[in-house]
Amino acid sequence: MIKQIEGGVCAPQGFRANGVHCGIRKNKIKKDLALIVAETNCAAASVYTQNLVKGAPILVTQKNLENAFARAVIVNSGNANTCNENGIEIAEGMCKLVEQYTGIPSSDVIVASTGVIGQKLSLEPIAGGMDELVKGLGANSSAAAEAIMTTDTVKKEIAFEFELGGKTCRIGAICKGVGMICPNMATLLMFVTTDVNISPHMLQKALTADVKDSVNMLSVDGDTSTNDTFAVLASGLAGNDEIVAPNADYEIFCLALHEVTVALCRMLAKDGEGATKLLECRVNGAKTEDDARSAAKSVIKSNLLKAAMFGCDANWGRVLCAIGYSGANLDVRKIGVAFRSRAGEIKVCESGAGIPFSEELAKKVLSEDEIIIDISLNDGDCGATAWGCDLTYDYVKINGDYRT
Amino acid sequence: MIKQIEGGVCAPQGFRANGVHCGIRKNKIKKDLALIVAETNCAAASVYTQNLVKGAPILVTQKNLENAFARAVIVNSGNANTCNENGIEIAEGMCKLVEQYTGIPSSDVIVASTGVIGQKLSLEPIAGGMDELVKGLGANSSAAAEAIMTTDTVKKEIAFEFELGGKTCRIGAICKGVGMICPNMATLLMFVTTDVNISPHMLQKALTADVKDSVNMLSVDGDTSTNDTFAVLASGLAGNDEIVAPNADYEIFCLALHEVTVALCRMLAKDGEGATKLLECRVNGAKTEDDARSAAKSVIKSNLLKAAMFGCDANWGRVLCAIGYSGANLDVRKIGVAFRSRAGEIKVCESGAGIPFSEELAKKVLSEDEIIIDISLNDGDCGATAWGCDLTYDYVKINGDYRT
Repeated sequence: MIKQIEGGVCAPQGFRANGVHCGIRKNKIKKDLALIVAETNCAAASVYTQNLVKGAPILVTQKNLENAFARAVIVNSGNANTCNENGIEIAEGMCKLVEQYTGIPSSDVIVASTGVIGQKLSLEPIAGGMDELVKGLGANSSAAAEAIMTTDTVKKEIAFEFELGGKTCRIGAICKGVGMICPNMATLLMFVTTDVNISPHMLQKALTADVKDSVNMLSVDGDTSTNDTFAVLASGLAGNDEIVAPNADYEIFCLALHEVTVALCRMLAKDGEGATKLLECRVNGAKTEDDARSAAKSVIKSNLLKAAMFGCDANWGRVLCAIGYSGANLDVRKIGVAFRSRAGEIKVCESGAGIPFSEELAKKVLSEDEIIIDISLNDGDCGATAWGCDLTYDYVKINGDYRT
Repeated sequence: MIKQIEGGVCAPQGFRANGVHCGIRKNKIKKDLALIVAETNCAAASVYTQNLVKGAPILVTQKNLENAFARAVIVNSGNANTCNENGIEIAEGMCKLVEQYTGIPSSDVIVASTGVIGQKLSLEPIAGGMDELVKGLGANSSAAAEAIMTTDTVKKEIAFEFELGGKTCRIGAICKGVGMICPNMATLLMFVTTDVNISPHMLQKALTADVKDSVNMLSVDGDTSTNDTFAVLASGLAGNDEIVAPNADYEIFCLALHEVTVALCRMLAKDGEGATKLLECRVNGAKTEDDARSAAKSVIKSNLLKAAMFGCDANWGRVLCAIGYSGANLDVRKIGVAFRSRAGEIKVCESGAGIPFSEELAKKVLSEDEIIIDISLNDGDCGATAWGCDLTYDYVKINGDYRT
């Protein structure tokens, strides 16, 4: 009984948001500063990039979340505040600005930045934008979602409603990220709010379990960003009995969280830089879940396969090739491969060898904008799904001249 | 005293070669069948792809090289003979054709195939081409180099001359490979001949040591092929004292071998599918050689950096990002980065943070067709070099519609 609703991060009780243009970006119609504020002190859980080069905002956020509670999220786009001498100072300055304008202690603020690496970020435009940002706080999830976009072409937000012990609960999210995406612990920037009453410990447990089969299975270009941050805030205002152990309510919450993260992963992959197609790689019949994940992720990351999908070419040899170097433990003589889309299904490989198929139907199936690559390893009972996109001329164009 | 000479695989004493069009490829001006034949039984060493999906020719070659001797190499392009039910039979059939036309026992033949995966390869055109192929055997290294090309735009061959104990020795090679290149043990196809007198054991030792710092440091697109084969044949006809231990002569031979493999790696990277630029990433100051290799390889494989190089964009943040997720053990606060080319040098990062630089000069440096990305980790004494190329519209074009 998980129902999609409107409202993004403001759908759950106790959250207001806003986004404005403060001037970090030159383009004045592009919002570049977002704020999410909670009425109550929220249980907070988070995961970050595993890149050794970590953005300064991540270091500040990690410190602020040591007590596992938070009340606000401030994010700028246009500058990653990473690989700068004064990065920590600036990130702390952003938290202090939140305190100054909202009264929320700076140590209860999550801070994130996204954009170019290695250019100094000035507090000036942010300070200048705070008044408008805070005055406009309300049910403005969309404005916040817009303000965190970089080369994203569509804003990404979603919300769901479900019940725990007779109480209506909500979970909402915004996120961004189209390039430098190959999260390993978290995607670029994803912020989830919920009014579920849950202990910080169980919230972190739910998040850590979820990312293995959501954002960590997403790849646009195999590059793991320095600034990936995925945080969840739980206000508790839904009034359900607090979740403090892995009971039935916890399971329902995990399902709702997974609905959110998978929906966002699909949006992120579909809006991958230059992408014309969402690729979903489903692996079943693996010996272990890790084998299934390795195989699925390897296929979704293959440049050769991604280019073939762009060209509507059912070049399944590249699927087998990517499975072969994935590190997954499997028997190549058992592998089956099919391509599926709204236009139909085409089986191309059985028992590790090619089978005759209609090139015409294959072209039709692969001309759709959502393609499922269905892989049967026939070697066990475990499965996994990974999301990605095709590799196109526009990916090269966007990234060949990003800074200028 | 290692001097470059002409002649490719036919430069060393005791080798003849040829390449013809036999009809595997539709395009009649494209040669598709190559043969290298040795006068004597040669010490033979080899390395192969580590992809679990291995082409049938590799399985046959591995069997034939169990005794570490070989006398011939037969290679076709246009079809990888991989993921086919009858692959082994066809690969063995190719070896038998060599026996039939040259008298060399089929168990002394190295066989390799390159091209599309998963389409059945017929022996018919090969059998039909053998007469012309064998009749034309001679100093035709170039014809063989042409016949193994797939989407390569230039043929790749090289040879060097050096002395061991007063005897003139030669080493020559041909290779191919422009896409699906991220070797892990070997590159696509590379065949080296030499007239050095060396035991099979020492030859394999030299090859295994060499690939760590040559072909395994090469990446065009991060995809590891199913058919990578790198074999060395040593005829012994130079008349030097047989190398049977790691002595001074062995060291000289290793240096000559490395000259060959590095020269070929640079050619392969420069001719990477769609590439307009050779990228050479030099890492120094690493704690261990493995750290240096990981960092260099990670940078050379980054799609984001590759696209930036295509756009002549000195986006060094992407260099740091790739180092950060490479898995190398290092201190990001010590990293320095510079870009170099014939047009000059530009330092862009010191102590892990950006430094001011002239965007104009950077553009000039990066507009050349050979770019060195110079990374100082300032954290130890080890170094490594990796080779790659930029990511361009043409890579997408070539791979979006390869089969049709």
